[in-house]
Amino acid sequence: VGAISARSLLGLPEVQVGDDLAQLIVAALGEQSLTGGHVLVIAHTVVSKAEGAVVALAEVTPGARARELAEAQGRDARVVQVVLDESAEVLRAEHGVIISRTRHGFVCANAGVDASNAGDAAGEDRVVLLPRDPDASARRIRARLRELCAEEQRGAPAVLISDTFGRAWRLGQTDAAIGLAGLAPLDDWRGRRDADGRDLQATWLAIADAAAGAADLARAKDSREPVVIVEGLERFVTLDDGAGALALVRPREQDLFG
Amino acid sequence: VGAISARSLLGLPEVQVGDDLAQLIVAALGEQSLTGGHVLVIAHTVVSKAEGAVVALAEVTPGARARELAEAQGRDARVVQVVLDESAEVLRAEHGVIISRTRHGFVCANAGVDASNAGDAAGEDRVVLLPRDPDASARRIRARLRELCAEEQRGAPAVLISDTFGRAWRLGQTDAAIGLAGLAPLDDWRGRRDADGRDLQATWLAIADAAAGAADLARAKDSREPVVIVEGLERFVTLDDGAGALALVRPREQDLFG
Repeated sequence: VGAISARSLLGLPEVQVGDDLAQLIVAALGEQSLTGGHVLVIAHTVVSKAEGAVVALAEVTPGARARELAEAQGRDARVVQVVLDESAEVLRAEHGVIISRTRHGFVCANAGVDASNAGDAAGEDRVVLLPRDPDASARRIRARLRELCAEEQRGAPAVLISDTFGRAWRLGQTDAAIGLAGLAPLDDWRGRRDADGRDLQATWLAIADAAAGAADLARAKDSREPVVIVEGLERFVTLDDGAGALALVRPREQDLFG
Repeated sequence: VGAISARSLLGLPEVQVGDDLAQLIVAALGEQSLTGGHVLVIAHTVVSKAEGAVVALAEVTPGARARELAEAQGRDARVVQVVLDESAEVLRAEHGVIISRTRHGFVCANAGVDASNAGDAAGEDRVVLLPRDPDASARRIRARLRELCAEEQRGAPAVLISDTFGRAWRLGQTDAAIGLAGLAPLDDWRGRRDADGRDLQATWLAIADAAAGAADLARAKDSREPVVIVEGLERFVTLDDGAGALALVRPREQDLFG
């Protein structure tokens, strides 16, 4: 308590389908230590790429609805088709953006489908999806880090997979946790009291989303810095993998809207 | 670029109405340096207290609507009356919470009225409001810091006043910027391209909200640590005070909901 820091990991190569991401991270760390109290924040795009959650647009045939939306929004109908495929429910389609609820339950623009940073060596047009099960991805990466670093450390760092989401009432985007292993998603102070013995009001803190945001501040947006190491959150790191980032998704029946 | 850090400022006394907050901060800093590249994140409650944005509940007479809502929610009707007074529009009143748009335009629970941490020496029941004009508060504190630190530094640190807000689609709360002087609220990459020459999608980053969240991770929730010093954001700190945190408020006509 009292200080946190976040630094981006340099030297990670371009991630390809089938890569062992944990091994690439350990190699890039070199002499830098990674301990059980650290939180490794990984931009989802490299996780998705390693897992092959990538779609070549040449293989997509847009249907009628995708073509209609694409025409209205001036977009590539194949990209829109992929967005629809990834959406459990489209909430809004306006101003050139589709807001939807993904299969996982995340509400975000374009169902998390990312047309940037998706170039491959052959220059093929591809889009990057969200990982199929980001919490499982985080657990897998954490377990692999535990294997690779077994001699040097106890436990393993927590793993947080992030994406960049818009917000309902505020402009701009912030990073949020979509996959999580070994970090408490929420810090629950409900029912506890402050130093005066009064009930606390702001009492259910989305630690993992704040950590994702802090990590994003440590990297340049146009650079290859998908991995950030956050220190100072030891009190939220657990040996077991915990509830995962799905615990941050507000159930629909508790939605703040009509 | 590459690293950020946040550390809480220890030794700040309990803030009282009329206090010179900047002076208290400089005194608490002691030998610690504060430069023009730093961002000083201040929890709004101490700003509100110093400015007297505090209401003694003994002086509040709840009206009919406040009494009705209070009965339905099992709350103190005087607190509900203060919430209504601070609300330009009530969006929802359910599950023991009122979601409203404040006079400033912020959408948050209870119009930002905080019944915790409001104790005074006499133990009187008080609630803390949001500052009347948080951007002006931030500018005032920054100007005062500039006066007090003139010899030791060029420029002045940026000042960010934070509150803790809920989110529409995600559980838990994160800190957000409600007042800002000298920090870019948003980092605009729209229209720019990534290292592959592709359009960036996540391109309009709410820097100030991410910084508020990072700062909150550095303080214990039950402690007296309203001020956090963030380093590593020099590239977003400006000599002029800039647009302020109101630039983060999504205009109603761009709202993501029907």
